Amino acid sequence: MDYNERFQALLSEMKLDGRYRTFAELERIAGEFPTALCHWPDGSSRRVTVWCSNDYLGMGQHPEVLDAMHKSIDLSGAGTGGTRNISGTNRQHVALESELADLHGKEAALIFTSGWISNLAALGTLGRVLPDCAIFSDALNHNSMIEGIRRSGAERFIFRHNDAAHLNELMSSIDPSRPKIVAFESVYSMDGDIAPIGEICDVAEKHGAITYLDEVHAVGLYGPRGGGIAEREGLADRLTVIEGTLAKAFGVIGGYVAGPAALIDVIRSMADSFIFTTSLCPHLAAGALAAVQHVKQHPEERRRQAVNAARLKAMLFDAELPVLDTPSHILPVIVGNAHLCRTISQRLLDEYSIYVQPINYPTVPRGQERLRITPTPFHTEADMRSLVDALVEIGRDIGWAVAQRVA
Amino acid sequence: MDYNERFQALLSEMKLDGRYRTFAELERIAGEFPTALCHWPDGSSRRVTVWCSNDYLGMGQHPEVLDAMHKSIDLSGAGTGGTRNISGTNRQHVALESELADLHGKEAALIFTSGWISNLAALGTLGRVLPDCAIFSDALNHNSMIEGIRRSGAERFIFRHNDAAHLNELMSSIDPSRPKIVAFESVYSMDGDIAPIGEICDVAEKHGAITYLDEVHAVGLYGPRGGGIAEREGLADRLTVIEGTLAKAFGVIGGYVAGPAALIDVIRSMADSFIFTTSLCPHLAAGALAAVQHVKQHPEERRRQAVNAARLKAMLFDAELPVLDTPSHILPVIVGNAHLCRTISQRLLDEYSIYVQPINYPTVPRGQERLRITPTPFHTEADMRSLVDALVEIGRDIGWAVAQRVA
Repeated sequence: MDYNERFQALLSEMKLDGRYRTFAELERIAGEFPTALCHWPDGSSRRVTVWCSNDYLGMGQHPEVLDAMHKSIDLSGAGTGGTRNISGTNRQHVALESELADLHGKEAALIFTSGWISNLAALGTLGRVLPDCAIFSDALNHNSMIEGIRRSGAERFIFRHNDAAHLNELMSSIDPSRPKIVAFESVYSMDGDIAPIGEICDVAEKHGAITYLDEVHAVGLYGPRGGGIAEREGLADRLTVIEGTLAKAFGVIGGYVAGPAALIDVIRSMADSFIFTTSLCPHLAAGALAAVQHVKQHPEERRRQAVNAARLKAMLFDAELPVLDTPSHILPVIVGNAHLCRTISQRLLDEYSIYVQPINYPTVPRGQERLRITPTPFHTEADMRSLVDALVEIGRDIGWAVAQRVA
Repeated sequence: MDYNERFQALLSEMKLDGRYRTFAELERIAGEFPTALCHWPDGSSRRVTVWCSNDYLGMGQHPEVLDAMHKSIDLSGAGTGGTRNISGTNRQHVALESELADLHGKEAALIFTSGWISNLAALGTLGRVLPDCAIFSDALNHNSMIEGIRRSGAERFIFRHNDAAHLNELMSSIDPSRPKIVAFESVYSMDGDIAPIGEICDVAEKHGAITYLDEVHAVGLYGPRGGGIAEREGLADRLTVIEGTLAKAFGVIGGYVAGPAALIDVIRSMADSFIFTTSLCPHLAAGALAAVQHVKQHPEERRRQAVNAARLKAMLFDAELPVLDTPSHILPVIVGNAHLCRTISQRLLDEYSIYVQPINYPTVPRGQERLRITPTPFHTEADMRSLVDALVEIGRDIGWAVAQRVA
């Protein structure tokens, strides 16, 4: 077989389809977020305003976070040189895990090198060690949860998105004595909608299931201490496991799960993707710890973010742009076509120095292509005005937004 | 079902079996490696000599690496706040990928958040996109390669460890027109033995297969520029893909694959575990870049490491300790019993301030439990003497090493 020909064919197909992704080469500028330098292949560069980052609170440039990282590098160096079991557990990991358990009011927490791995490891292990386990999974769950469930080998039941009644129907259809896990998210990344956590917990409890909630787009942003939507709604104690990330509102990298001590210990002891990998660098744990501690005590930053999100949403509506009316900080502007989505994004960058990456398949279904806009506390009113004006101008020029509104 | 009871039962079983892992809580001290502080649950701490780190060259404390990280944090902050596609590609990633492609003489490279993910993403994608692909996998391949192969859905054939003749037999047994991948490692982590790369490539080429070599325990350590065993033996161009890590000899965190441009682009474009995860922090890429550049130009450090490994091996042999006669820097001292392995490790730590983690199932098969010793350029002759003497004393006391030698 001519492998190269096969690979080229796959790439050509993606290009034709508008699915081929080109990465914008940025250079983040600490202290100037959401401004970044954008580098072009021809060697030129220009300052752009980033409107698609998940560094939701700008903690990735916060002096307390950077100081903690600098100090920890001076103290402990770069990598750990080992898996958690083989010389790779450091003081900084232990402190962070204790802080995260506290954030969610759980007995224990376990950190991973990414949120993706958190879900793979946790769901993959729980579904495997509970005999004849059934996992009930929201239809829009993130790829990492789907991979974890698949990896577990457990039987999977998909309930309609955010539909507690459908969940109940599915749960009622199987042997009541089987172990069960209900896996869902609080804030869904691409639509920005929020799960009816209480209703889902009611159903799950009725059927004696473990509840597993992915809060990666909510931790740091919601709740009095930034514990997420579950904390905001006073429901954290009804969730068995809360999964979160250190890479979005906490501004660093890595993921975690928090839950009952024995459950967390089982994941720690049995998850291949945790056991066989070098641990997070100590300074990353130290930086994340500083971020969590700061965010816990500074609700004003998430308030400013919420205000900015509401303000921008109102402006997008006023301009009659096709933004989804979400109850969260995520503002999806629907385009519905991969090529068009790429064109709008490219023109925003080239003509207005505004960076919003097109979101195409497989991140969203075909026909659902969009610009996913994430305001932060650092975007100014002028930034918002520029963004909305640019979208309106481009929309007029190519007949996009109007068509959307009519549809 | 009483979930907690089930989890407790699993943990008890592991404890009885000697498989339950307790993590030593370290605090690495930059500039003093391989010395680290070890913290005990009672709050006390003590300096220990670490003999089980994969920070093989101490690059995790190298001033050039730490400087690069500090500077990059000052410049670009902590995390990227996005996947590679959504605002998460930074200048530092692009520079590192270009450097790694050069290190292995390949057209392109792609970095991941871990070596574990590199193998999952690369093998998982290649095996999936090549129709009716057959993957030939060495019997002792690492967990991450096994997971990648499993994830790909391709048919898997396991050839006896390092046995090119068996590989040939298996490859001859299937339809010659099928796409094929031969996946193996250069230095095997737990036995420290080295693959017959040339012979395996002969067989793979005869059958028209892609060759995929995991060099995570070799990059930085072997070859004129630290390109690994393939480079040392002048075979790098016969490998389609070389997979490596930034977390061992390069001292930071992360993994990568290097290979033909179209193949790498397919992984970049289609691997879920790459697409749906926040990218490495820019300063980690900057630190790894500094490490790769340094290691390329400083063969004297890997020479010192090789000298130390040879010296310690000779001392272990002289003391009649059951060390495997490996051709690499990894020195496995076989214990063969999980409880005994744990006891020896604990006594080394408690009585001699020497830290070597016991390696038990599932990292090695049951009955193969061992102490895996990894000398670095920074271990002194006195460190070696202390280690050997301690092992001899403990061995005498509990009748371990003698029994092993007789067996």
